[in-house]
Amino acid sequence: MTMRRRLPISALALGIAFTLPAHADEGMWMPSQLPGLAKTLREAGFKGDPESLADVTRAPLSAVVRAGGGTGSFVSPDGLILTNHHVAYGVIQYNSKPGNNLIDHGFIAADRAGELPANPDFRVLVTVGYDKVTEAVLEEAAGKTGRDYFDAVDRASKAIVAECEQEAGMRCSVANTHYGTDFYRIKQLELRDIRLVYAPPRAIGNYGDEIDNFMWPRHTGDFTLLRAYVGQDGKPAAYDPDNVPYRAPAHLTLAKDGPKAGDYAMLAGYPGITYRHRTAAEFDEQVNWTLPARVDVFDELIGVVEAAGARDADAKTHYAAQLQSLKNNRKRAAGELEGLRRSDAARVRAEDERDMLATAAAEKERTDIAALAASLAEASAVRERELLLGLFGSQTQLMRAAIMLERLRVESAKPDAERESGYQVRDHALIEGFLKQVQRRYSPGVEKALLTALLARYQQLPDAQRLPVFDAAFGRTPAELEKSLDTLYAGTTLGDEAARLSRFAAAREGRPLAADPLGDLASKLVPAQLALEQQRKTREGEQLRLRPAYMRALFAWRQQQGRALYPDANGTLRVSFGKVDGFSPRDGVRYTPVTTVAGIVEKNTGEAPFDAPKPLLDGIAAGDFAGTEDAALETQTVNFLTNLDTTGGNSGSPVLNARGELIGLNFDSNWESVSASWMFDPRYKRAVHVDMRYMRWLMDKVYPAPHLLKEMRAD
Amino acid sequence: MTMRRRLPISALALGIAFTLPAHADEGMWMPSQLPGLAKTLREAGFKGDPESLADVTRAPLSAVVRAGGGTGSFVSPDGLILTNHHVAYGVIQYNSKPGNNLIDHGFIAADRAGELPANPDFRVLVTVGYDKVTEAVLEEAAGKTGRDYFDAVDRASKAIVAECEQEAGMRCSVANTHYGTDFYRIKQLELRDIRLVYAPPRAIGNYGDEIDNFMWPRHTGDFTLLRAYVGQDGKPAAYDPDNVPYRAPAHLTLAKDGPKAGDYAMLAGYPGITYRHRTAAEFDEQVNWTLPARVDVFDELIGVVEAAGARDADAKTHYAAQLQSLKNNRKRAAGELEGLRRSDAARVRAEDERDMLATAAAEKERTDIAALAASLAEASAVRERELLLGLFGSQTQLMRAAIMLERLRVESAKPDAERESGYQVRDHALIEGFLKQVQRRYSPGVEKALLTALLARYQQLPDAQRLPVFDAAFGRTPAELEKSLDTLYAGTTLGDEAARLSRFAAAREGRPLAADPLGDLASKLVPAQLALEQQRKTREGEQLRLRPAYMRALFAWRQQQGRALYPDANGTLRVSFGKVDGFSPRDGVRYTPVTTVAGIVEKNTGEAPFDAPKPLLDGIAAGDFAGTEDAALETQTVNFLTNLDTTGGNSGSPVLNARGELIGLNFDSNWESVSASWMFDPRYKRAVHVDMRYMRWLMDKVYPAPHLLKEMRAD
Repeated sequence: MTMRRRLPISALALGIAFTLPAHADEGMWMPSQLPGLAKTLREAGFKGDPESLADVTRAPLSAVVRAGGGTGSFVSPDGLILTNHHVAYGVIQYNSKPGNNLIDHGFIAADRAGELPANPDFRVLVTVGYDKVTEAVLEEAAGKTGRDYFDAVDRASKAIVAECEQEAGMRCSVANTHYGTDFYRIKQLELRDIRLVYAPPRAIGNYGDEIDNFMWPRHTGDFTLLRAYVGQDGKPAAYDPDNVPYRAPAHLTLAKDGPKAGDYAMLAGYPGITYRHRTAAEFDEQVNWTLPARVDVFDELIGVVEAAGARDADAKTHYAAQLQSLKNNRKRAAGELEGLRRSDAARVRAEDERDMLATAAAEKERTDIAALAASLAEASAVRERELLLGLFGSQTQLMRAAIMLERLRVESAKPDAERESGYQVRDHALIEGFLKQVQRRYSPGVEKALLTALLARYQQLPDAQRLPVFDAAFGRTPAELEKSLDTLYAGTTLGDEAARLSRFAAAREGRPLAADPLGDLASKLVPAQLALEQQRKTREGEQLRLRPAYMRALFAWRQQQGRALYPDANGTLRVSFGKVDGFSPRDGVRYTPVTTVAGIVEKNTGEAPFDAPKPLLDGIAAGDFAGTEDAALETQTVNFLTNLDTTGGNSGSPVLNARGELIGLNFDSNWESVSASWMFDPRYKRAVHVDMRYMRWLMDKVYPAPHLLKEMRAD
Repeated sequence: MTMRRRLPISALALGIAFTLPAHADEGMWMPSQLPGLAKTLREAGFKGDPESLADVTRAPLSAVVRAGGGTGSFVSPDGLILTNHHVAYGVIQYNSKPGNNLIDHGFIAADRAGELPANPDFRVLVTVGYDKVTEAVLEEAAGKTGRDYFDAVDRASKAIVAECEQEAGMRCSVANTHYGTDFYRIKQLELRDIRLVYAPPRAIGNYGDEIDNFMWPRHTGDFTLLRAYVGQDGKPAAYDPDNVPYRAPAHLTLAKDGPKAGDYAMLAGYPGITYRHRTAAEFDEQVNWTLPARVDVFDELIGVVEAAGARDADAKTHYAAQLQSLKNNRKRAAGELEGLRRSDAARVRAEDERDMLATAAAEKERTDIAALAASLAEASAVRERELLLGLFGSQTQLMRAAIMLERLRVESAKPDAERESGYQVRDHALIEGFLKQVQRRYSPGVEKALLTALLARYQQLPDAQRLPVFDAAFGRTPAELEKSLDTLYAGTTLGDEAARLSRFAAAREGRPLAADPLGDLASKLVPAQLALEQQRKTREGEQLRLRPAYMRALFAWRQQQGRALYPDANGTLRVSFGKVDGFSPRDGVRYTPVTTVAGIVEKNTGEAPFDAPKPLLDGIAAGDFAGTEDAALETQTVNFLTNLDTTGGNSGSPVLNARGELIGLNFDSNWESVSASWMFDPRYKRAVHVDMRYMRWLMDKVYPAPHLLKEMRAD
């Protein structure tokens, strides 16, 4: 862990074979691993006690929460939560109305009564329990294979979750760690009444938008403050005006100083998923098929939504979030591809795996690893179909609602514990939330155009990958496809909220749903979907059973190399530590690790996404930064870079200094590092943060909220 | 001159009003000014005697020559000349033949017998005299105005040139300095037998081509070696196999060490033209009309040539140089515009001029300056037509040849001294050279398409700007234009070299030319052109008469500010001094001043213009840089940056260290500084050079020419 070797850049640029070095900066550590890394932590500059970081249910880590799709942290005892503008984007959008556009204008709640309720499905989760349950999860699976193995693990996990959620207000999950090697029960307090407290205008919170997304240098004030409320009994509750602020178990304190190059930094959050310990074959597929295919299909869908938005202002508003997400995904795929090629990831991983296999002695292990490879190959044979069907569900609103309702009806006929995850009683509120907000995110013309794009591709698939029920529903030619979609969307009543909710009421009781063209289609598609799921689960069951052999070989190999092994990200709380650090993206260019307000002015064109608000430009011109300016740079800083190990889900992660004080808010990665979900390349992997001094300055001088600064003790 | 003030970047980026500081780096000094700057030179780090730089006819400056359209320098006693690949591009192209493409493959003359003659119109000029002749030039002009003033100056200048050129082998000129304030007679030895000695392949000499042009970081080996030959009597002569190498009056020595950040650097060369001392009104027009209009028309012409090249490989070859020049001009105009806006040049110049005028006391001076403004406004009224007619002449081959022949016929009827510059006996060889090489650079379809684009714009001009003879020749509608061009180019015989040369023989004696559709058209266009020229010269005469008042006011104002004033560039030898220096193009980004071979590999795609040759890639991979590598960077460097003051014409300028040794070869500016022809902004103005260590390495290890290294004493 303490070794760190950098190759001269010329050798790296040449792609000369190199082994990824063991170094202190790579690693999304489970908190329980940190005491074992005490020496490395101290060498890196950490001034606290590594033991204090081991327990996620104690301060300071208990201040770090899951917020929406990202991370947040308590910054006051009264449930004030700091997260990203883009994490809270749905909350801001939900409260925006014609004539009162909070996205454009930002929002400051004058007092607690003025705080605005979030969309009903927005959640904040506070981890209160974290226990290893491997034996319980795998007990029944022993001796089984394929789907049976999968089901045994699934059943055991659900039973653990169900028992855990007996306690009111808790949301539980079982975290598969090291690919089926270990399982942890995560118990989280589910805060359901979340309110919007402070959001900067879009032109600050999302300055640069897609153009600057994943880019450095960056100049974005990507932060928002929310507040969690609970019932008067202190328990989680749905929104109620009489609810009271949640008493946070711990909160972070804003540092007075800011970051500078070389400073120790650490970050805690909920990274969603990484693939660093996947097989060489999976690396190869990612580089040579998956990413190029994703870029291609996202390009088409972006074009569809943009063309619709250009014709129809209403469609533009409704699809704003989906378009942003599509662009994000497209850019991310392209960046991952570029980065994996630059790091020569497929080759590096292949050579690492080859060396690992050469040392893996046990015959049983070798057999399992070969069987794993065979199962992965089966999945690859249907990858084109899987990509399109995934988008068919995720990129539509009414179609997704119809399928969700039908699936809910089917699942609800079973006892709750046997239902598919996502369709249990505990999921009903989330489903209802989705069904309610379809209205805000749907336009029939756009949905048909998106389906046309996806199904036209589907029609081109070879026979072995197509499904009879899809062929029957959408035909085999563009003309048949157009006709079928016209008929479906002309006849469906699911565009009406009441129609969806009445069917929801029936579906959750397993009762038949009232007739509807889309609903009727869903009743044919869902059985096919279930059959595919069966095949998929059989493969996944095999992989779940076989991957631990691969992981054991990898553990042994890393041990031989003298390197600790962190689990691939799985949405659980992780800690990363490293330092404030610029980098050289290419020969002759050095990125400095801290940006300043000068860059806001340089980029400002007056037109979105570089339309810095006048109060901001005036504030910069006035130069009144006393108290928040950087002493060395003699100006106001905006964003900074660290070499911390992050991925999606780390959005909103608090960045702490050596004393554990809040110096930054993670919100992005640089373009050169988006491939880090597969491979951490220390030359390029950086995380992008809002400098807390910028937030303090904005809240002090530009869009003042002195009461909130006071609450955070930053006044 | 010693003051240097840098503002904090935040203030600069905000465009907060700033006065350009007096600083050591701005200035294209006349050599005679350097002894007066001795203190500044020494403070900057110069180790030599400033007095030694005062005389352009003595070493070391006598080693610096005019080569083609740029600068070159002698690097051996035997007439070996170092200049840019792009300066010698025409020489290399001239010697390329199907099956022996020297552009693609490069060239190494195995010995002197193997050196290849340049195109006949390529010249190298060695300055042998430099004398002030202001009194003689202005003597007759006193009391005159307008065209009469112009003619008096022109007559006097021509008389001086004619007398000077009485000496065989001399080419003389009168350099208008400080806009008519002073005049210098420049006497240059005209070397006409120039041969190609060494050229790297295009993928080294022009690595990155238009994509990297004006860009940093840069990785281009933009150098070529030529050799000057003279007759056995030591006098300039046309190419003859029996000619002998020219004995250079001085030559530069390659430094053993290379440049590093902060090192003193200086450069000598022939900067063509700058506009820094132009009026505020001229700055305003440049920013708000000229540059946007140029970008627009160049875009269209580039499209025309590229479309033709895509259809016709022959056209592509013939127009390669013209296309490169168009792209260069387009990019330069766009960069100038961007830079002038960033430096807020129009406002800064306006405020400087306002302050200057507030201090200018003399009534006569004020009257002259007002009259100058009126004359400039007259020119602005016809600027659209002037732009199009300029391109009509410069972007065509046959049309240009026809007009040139007709003009030559007209001028040749007058006594030589009264002929227009460019059409005197001394110019005949250049005209003949142009007429000969039309063949290599012409394709009727492309020329018609270019004329169609230009004349279609011309047809849109208001009546006041159009000329009856053009309307009659090309009609008033696109259809009439097409018909007229079809007829002209179907009938002309000027595509035939013999036809052009027989008319040349007649024209230079003032005899009538044989009938030809293009020739007949030229006989109508030339009188119109002469009438416009008359108007233009009247305006220019007024400006020539009036600008000295403006310059006197500026001299006085600069003296009040404690700043020396160098003349705007006028194609004469100038010296600039400063240092090796990176810069920050924008917040968060720092460009380092030296690039390395790692960047070549990073940029390499295998496809032009990033198709590094295999021997180069192999050489980099082998890493055998012993003797030429940078000790600190531990690798081979390629290019470097200085803050030296350069402009077009400085291509090929030698860059010297504090001891006067050759460390670099100037070949470009960074994109951020192309506006420096109007305004020197010390934040952004940098010059881009080939590191001589890269050249030495290439000639040692990659495309070896040990005999040439030995000749340069760099073996």
